[in-house]
This record gives sequence, structure tokens and C-alpha cells, in this order.
Amino acid sequence: MRDRDTFRSAAAELLGPRGFTYDKDLVEPWLTDWRGRYTGKAVGLASPGSTDEVSRFVKLCSAYGVPIVPQGGNSGMSGGATPDDGGDSVILSLRRMNTIRELDVAAQQVTCGAGVVLQTLHEAAEAEGLRFPLTLGGKGSATIGGLVSTNAGGTQVLRHGTMRAQVLGLESVLADGSVFSNLVPLKKDNRGFDLKQLLIGSEGTLGIVTAATLRLVPQTAQRRVAWIGLSSISRARELLLHCEKRAGDALEGFEVLPHHCLQSVLAHLPDSRSPLSNDHGWYALVELVAEATEADAIDGLAEDVLHSAMERDLIEDAVISASEAQAEAFWLLRESISPAERAIGPAMQHDISVPVARMAEFVETASPEIEKRFPGTTAIGFGHLGDGNIHYHVLAPPSAVQGEWEMTDGKIISAFVHDLVTEFGGSISAEHGIGQMKRDELSRLGDPVALGLMRTIKQALDPQGILNPGKLVPLAPDAPTP
Amino acid sequence: MRDRDTFRSAAAELLGPRGFTYDKDLVEPWLTDWRGRYTGKAVGLASPGSTDEVSRFVKLCSAYGVPIVPQGGNSGMSGGATPDDGGDSVILSLRRMNTIRELDVAAQQVTCGAGVVLQTLHEAAEAEGLRFPLTLGGKGSATIGGLVSTNAGGTQVLRHGTMRAQVLGLESVLADGSVFSNLVPLKKDNRGFDLKQLLIGSEGTLGIVTAATLRLVPQTAQRRVAWIGLSSISRARELLLHCEKRAGDALEGFEVLPHHCLQSVLAHLPDSRSPLSNDHGWYALVELVAEATEADAIDGLAEDVLHSAMERDLIEDAVISASEAQAEAFWLLRESISPAERAIGPAMQHDISVPVARMAEFVETASPEIEKRFPGTTAIGFGHLGDGNIHYHVLAPPSAVQGEWEMTDGKIISAFVHDLVTEFGGSISAEHGIGQMKRDELSRLGDPVALGLMRTIKQALDPQGILNPGKLVPLAPDAPTP
Repeated sequence: MRDRDTFRSAAAELLGPRGFTYDKDLVEPWLTDWRGRYTGKAVGLASPGSTDEVSRFVKLCSAYGVPIVPQGGNSGMSGGATPDDGGDSVILSLRRMNTIRELDVAAQQVTCGAGVVLQTLHEAAEAEGLRFPLTLGGKGSATIGGLVSTNAGGTQVLRHGTMRAQVLGLESVLADGSVFSNLVPLKKDNRGFDLKQLLIGSEGTLGIVTAATLRLVPQTAQRRVAWIGLSSISRARELLLHCEKRAGDALEGFEVLPHHCLQSVLAHLPDSRSPLSNDHGWYALVELVAEATEADAIDGLAEDVLHSAMERDLIEDAVISASEAQAEAFWLLRESISPAERAIGPAMQHDISVPVARMAEFVETASPEIEKRFPGTTAIGFGHLGDGNIHYHVLAPPSAVQGEWEMTDGKIISAFVHDLVTEFGGSISAEHGIGQMKRDELSRLGDPVALGLMRTIKQALDPQGILNPGKLVPLAPDAPTP
Repeated sequence: MRDRDTFRSAAAELLGPRGFTYDKDLVEPWLTDWRGRYTGKAVGLASPGSTDEVSRFVKLCSAYGVPIVPQGGNSGMSGGATPDDGGDSVILSLRRMNTIRELDVAAQQVTCGAGVVLQTLHEAAEAEGLRFPLTLGGKGSATIGGLVSTNAGGTQVLRHGTMRAQVLGLESVLADGSVFSNLVPLKKDNRGFDLKQLLIGSEGTLGIVTAATLRLVPQTAQRRVAWIGLSSISRARELLLHCEKRAGDALEGFEVLPHHCLQSVLAHLPDSRSPLSNDHGWYALVELVAEATEADAIDGLAEDVLHSAMERDLIEDAVISASEAQAEAFWLLRESISPAERAIGPAMQHDISVPVARMAEFVETASPEIEKRFPGTTAIGFGHLGDGNIHYHVLAPPSAVQGEWEMTDGKIISAFVHDLVTEFGGSISAEHGIGQMKRDELSRLGDPVALGLMRTIKQALDPQGILNPGKLVPLAPDAPTP
């Protein structure tokens, strides 16, 4: 960059010492994603404290042609918040915009700055007898802005939907620095295109989320978590249909895992134990909840659901949580799968969805095929069966060299998985987004009409290409390699 | 148009005699909207029978520069499906594409051609023990394509959301004739911008909806409809909060009307009678539903909700439907308000929303103000209080001349209502869309940043401007008047 020094001076003047730095020690921690997969360089780290400062900073970047990499908790899964190694980009951290602007108990709505951490929002809602119905592993660092920008999912999507379903209103700074402000949460508004929908999930490539109004729901009075042993993932799908029918809206979560995952977790967590006395091929974790008005009925419902499932031979064994501590222990097993599997050794991880009805077939087709084609590998799928979304990991053979295998065999395996997902009418990114990690795979496998539309919209809304370049939007087929 | 004859010949050749006509008698009925407010001219009426035919026809229109006015049931409220009087546009009717392609009972999903009539979809779902959770007065003519294009609402939005919330997948033909096909209903898919969200509610200005995959819900086993007498609309708001708290997800509908509306309906429907023995200032119609598993509890719930509301002095009197026939009779009163009010004489009708918490204040501010400023008028608001959306009618003074008053005093009154709605942070179109009716008001009152974004997107996706020109998207401030 020619005007590096001038830009830095102008940025420092605009945002002040708390708002802009290029001190190596202060910038360094944010140049690499939390899993250490992507790393880059930056001309500086901007941390504006208000929407107005974001707006003026974007105008400055536009004037200097400086690419902007928006960043929330830096806990994304696809490298969407990490700069490239050119060193010309600036990181725009939203973390200082961490104010809960308003929590309206009667309307069950909350307006948050982009930098509010998910865990903080959970606590604020709970203090008012409400809850924010989206949660995920990274809740201690993930920010509202990042969650909106990536349309995050998690373990409560089955009943409550992804982040998109929680967003009632949005405030974003566009590529020219103008502020799109749509925080008034109208339940119905048909004044033209629903522009906030375009910004949700656009990973900072069309605008920078600065605040959002989100819906809250009543706190659930009671929950029961069942840990269920099953013979196969096909049975899990039948059990899901059964639970949907019997439990209706009380069904809050439906997660599955194969025995391999349970074994890994038991080895990884010293104090953990298997909830059932025998081993089973698969397990389902089913959460049922009741609002205050129906708390009495929940034990009856849980027993009815499991009893009738047992009668229909859908399940082999099951246990219902007898206390909140036990419910949490069951969830801890589920939430520890990722770190436990990572501890085993290198693996290619895929965040995929297919139509719910076809998930069992997908797993039963893909896993033997992969293990045959790539000897020594182990293929496992676990996660959100109720959403048709599983995390599909292919573990390297014991002989594989970490760092090398991922770039050679691992790449071929991922392409194979993605091809198969596409054949099943599925998505190569169910909830983790595209970022830089899957951009080329999206380019290879995406519908050309959809990709063309995305490029057209990106070009129209960010003609300079300064908003998170290189992320999400695949380049045109004839574009020069950057 | 220079090439009128050539275009007609090419269209006739492409679509065949069933698919294209310019016979005056066949085109005529579709040149005017159902309420007779807008009328126009057209070079012909195209009725393609497949998505491929739509695609090829749009390419033809693009080659000839012929503007396309997509039309479903021609039952829209804002003139969005009526051509202008230039005579150069072609009407593109989707009515022949009326096939239910697939109804998946287990997955609770249905894929419909754009021309499927809402009532037909209701019946198809019911035949399988399911239901499609959106309904409105025009269900006998409104088509799925039109409902998606206008993001329609209705009386079940409170619990189930607008049309946007029902759409799982979408197929649309774009301005260049390419087909955006996203009918695979994945519950989670983060492969970039959610393009279908941009098309939903875009009133045919960005693409032509040819099919949609929609969600279905379990048939409700039981419903109870309460007709409630209240002293004021403020009390109605308190009652709404009370019902939300006590009934939770069982609350399916919450509609309000002032006594004036009930009087109009009783005068209009010969066999109708008031459900309560005394008159009240306002009435609420509250629907509670139960799925099959909870059918027993619904009477207890309905009684509990009303009893506790009475104890808190929220309501003056109430009656709960004792049979399905009575439930329907209560709803008939609600659904007859529009025709009953129309029968009285000229009125300016406004489909507005404000934040739910402010609706009572809006009505209590606006109505006396309007009746004072415009002597002889009567201002009434009724409808979907639970959504913060009411239909706000200002009835002309008895001396007003129909057809004249609407163009003079009526216009001033509408501008006054829209100004006030905007001051309240509301929307001048809650569920009826913009069409041609409200385009200039949107231009006058809309957020300039949002309007700029809409123009940018429209220009990028339809550079020729052939998709429903003159509708929804306000022209740029410096654009020549068309």
C-alpha cells in the first residue's frame, strides 16, 4: 500500500488511541483464527466504539481503498474473519460495541451492539425471566455481530431456527459508509425488499453489522434430557419423527452420535461415564422442555414418548435426566465430541446438511465407501439430525502425518464428501459458513445461477470490493487469481 | 412498440394457443384489479405451462424489450399485478402452473407450482392430516406465487409468521430468463447470501416465482374462539400480553375491532347477531388451538385465560365458542368487516403496522385528530393487533362524492395517516405490499439508505427494467417521470 502511513495517521486521528492501533503485539492475536488454521497480516486493528465511528472509518477505508476484515469474537469456523497475508487489509473489530442498548421484557425483544458476547446476552435475558433461544459451543466468545453475519446455528435450531429467525431488526454500515438502520422491530413490514435478510449470513461482504434487535422467548420452567441407545442412524430418524409427532413444540433438541464419539469423549473427559450400562451403535440426545404453564406435564410427556418408542422397537435403551445436573452431564458429552475427536489426531471436518429424510441414507452410504476408498480412515457423523445437519469427520489413518495429510489425502477426501453431499441435494456448509475455507468448493459445486446472482449483488453493493474480499463470494470463472 | 406483431407471433409460436393470446375478450378480464381500482392495457396475455416455458418467454421479452407484469389470482391489494396504460407490457399469468408437485407427509413439506390456489393447498394438506398455516380472505383466488411475491400475511401470522416463514425453497425465473432453483428444502444452508429471501416480497420486480416448497404443520385437533368485550384498545393490548403469557404457543390469533365495525357487519350480514348481550367499546377475537396430544386441556386453558383476565379487570365480558359452528360464526364477523365497511361508502384504507406496544397509543392519537381535522369523517382501526398490524380506515363524510373525495380530501388524509405512522416508527405497508398504490408514498417517507439499496439491487438484477416496472421500487429522486 502506497499511503500506509497516511492511512494509519488518519485512522488514529479518527478513532483515537483506543480505536486504532498498529502495535504488533496488540494486532498479532487477531491475525490468526482460534483454531490456528488461517493466519494473515494487517495494516492495523480498528476498534470503533459507535456506529457513527464505524461509518466514518468505512468512508476512510473507501477513500484509501483499504480492504476491511470485520471481526467479532474471532471464533468462526471457516476463516471468515482472518485477513489474507497481503498486509493491506485492516481488521475492523466490533468488540468494543458491546452494549445491550435495550431489553424490552413485555415485548420480549433486545437490541444489542454487535460486540455483545452471546453468553452475556444469555445472562441478561435470564435476569429478566426470559431467554435467547440460540446457543453453541463458542458462546463465551462469539459475538452477536458475528452470529448474525454467519447466520449461526447450534443446538436449538430444531425448535427455534437459526440466527436468521431471531433477528427482528438490523443496523449495518454499507460499503460507502452509509448506515442502513432497521432496528425498529415491526412484526409485519412489506415496504419492499427485505434488505436485512440479505445482510444476515453475508459474512461481512455486503455490510458490517453494528447492532441487531433480537427476539427473546419465555424461560423454560423445566427440561428433561433423554439419552437413548439405538441400533442405527435409520432408527434415529424414525425416533425423530416419533418425537415430533408425540412431543410437538416441546421437542427442543435432537442430536445423534455414533458409539465412536462416545468412546472418544469418555477417553477425553476423565470424570465422564456412559449414561447407559450397555454399548449401542448410535445414541440420541433428546431434549423436551415445558413453559411454566405446563411444567407438571413434562415427566408424563417424556415417559410417554420413550415408552411408546420402546413399544415400537425404535430404541434399545434409554434414561431420562433425573436432575438438572444430570441433564447438563448428558449435554456435556455431546458438546465434548469436537475437542475429543480433535485430540485423537488429524481429521477432515465437514459441516453438511441434506434433506432430513435422507441423512441416514447419506451416512450409511458415505461411511463404508470412504473407509474402503481411503484405507485406515474412520468416518463419523454426529450432531443435529433434527435439522438434517451433521458434522461429518473423516479421521486420518494412524500413520498419517499431521499437517501433511490434510493437504494431500485430506483434500481428496473432502472433495469426495462434498461431491456426495451435492448428489444428495445437500449443502457443503450447513451452519459454519463459507469464509475462505470453502470458497473454492462453493465455486466448484454451487449452482451457477446462484453464484452469478451472488457476484452481481456483491458487485452492485460493494463496487470497490473493500468489504471482506476473498471471503464467501466465489470469483467469476474468468477472473484472474488474486 | 415497433415490433408488436412480430413479438405476438413469436410468443404465440413459443407458447402455443393455450399459452398466448391477444384476443381482446380473453385479455380484458385481467387488465383490471379485482377491486376495480387500477386498469391498464397489454400487448397480450401469456400463460405458460411450465418453468421452462416461463424461462423461454422471459428471454423473448428481454430480446424485444417487452415489460412483463406477473399475475397470479389478480387479488392483490396494491395494484401490483395490473399493467400500466401504455399498452406495451405483457401480462404473464402463472395460473396454468397449478400443480402440487409433491406433498411429503413425513417431512411436512409441499412443493407447489406458482398457480396453485391457496384454498386448493389447504384442502390437499387437510387430506393428509396436515395444514398450511396461512390463510386470508382471498384464499379462493390467491395463488402461491402471488402470496410469496407479496409476502402475504393474514390471520395466523401471530403464531406462524407471514409467507416468508412458510417458504423452505423457491424456484424463480430471473430477468435474463435463467432459472434460480432452490426447491431442495434444507433446514440449514449457509452457502452464501440467502437469495430466496430477496425474491420473497419483491412483487415480481426481481424475478418471477414459478414454484415454492412450503412447510406444513400438524392439523390442530381442537380450537376455541373467544369473543371478548373490552373498554378500550389499550385494554386489548394488556389482554394480548396476558394471553401470550398464559397460553404461550396455544395462542393462534388475536384480532380486535371497535364497536363501529361490529355494527357495520351486523347491518351487512342479515343473519348475524352480536355474540355478547351488551355493547362494548372494543372487541377482541382470540383463538386458542391444541394439537392432538393436548386436546383435553384446551377447555381448561380457555377458561383459565379468560377467568384470570376478568379477575385482573382486563375484560368486560366474554363468550367461548361452544362448537366449531360457533367458532366459524365468530370468525365470519371478523372476516366480514372489510366488505361491510365498503358497503357504507367511500373510505381511505390503510394497511399499517407500528411496534405492537405502541398500537393502542397510535389509534388513540390518530382517530380523534383525524376526525377533528377532517370534519364528518370516521376513523376506525381493526385487525391483527397481535402483529402490530391494523387496517385503518377513514370513512368519508356522508356528503362526500364517491370517486371525487378519494382523489382530493382522501389523498390528504392518507398522507396524514402515513406521516403519523412514520412518526411512530411504523410501516405504511404491513402486509398488502407497495405495488403501484403506495410507491410514491414509499418514495416520500422511506429511509433514503434503504431506498438507495433497493434501486441498486433492482438495477443490478434487472438492468433492462422489464420485470414489473413501475411497481414497488421508487424511482431515483432525479429520474424522469415515466
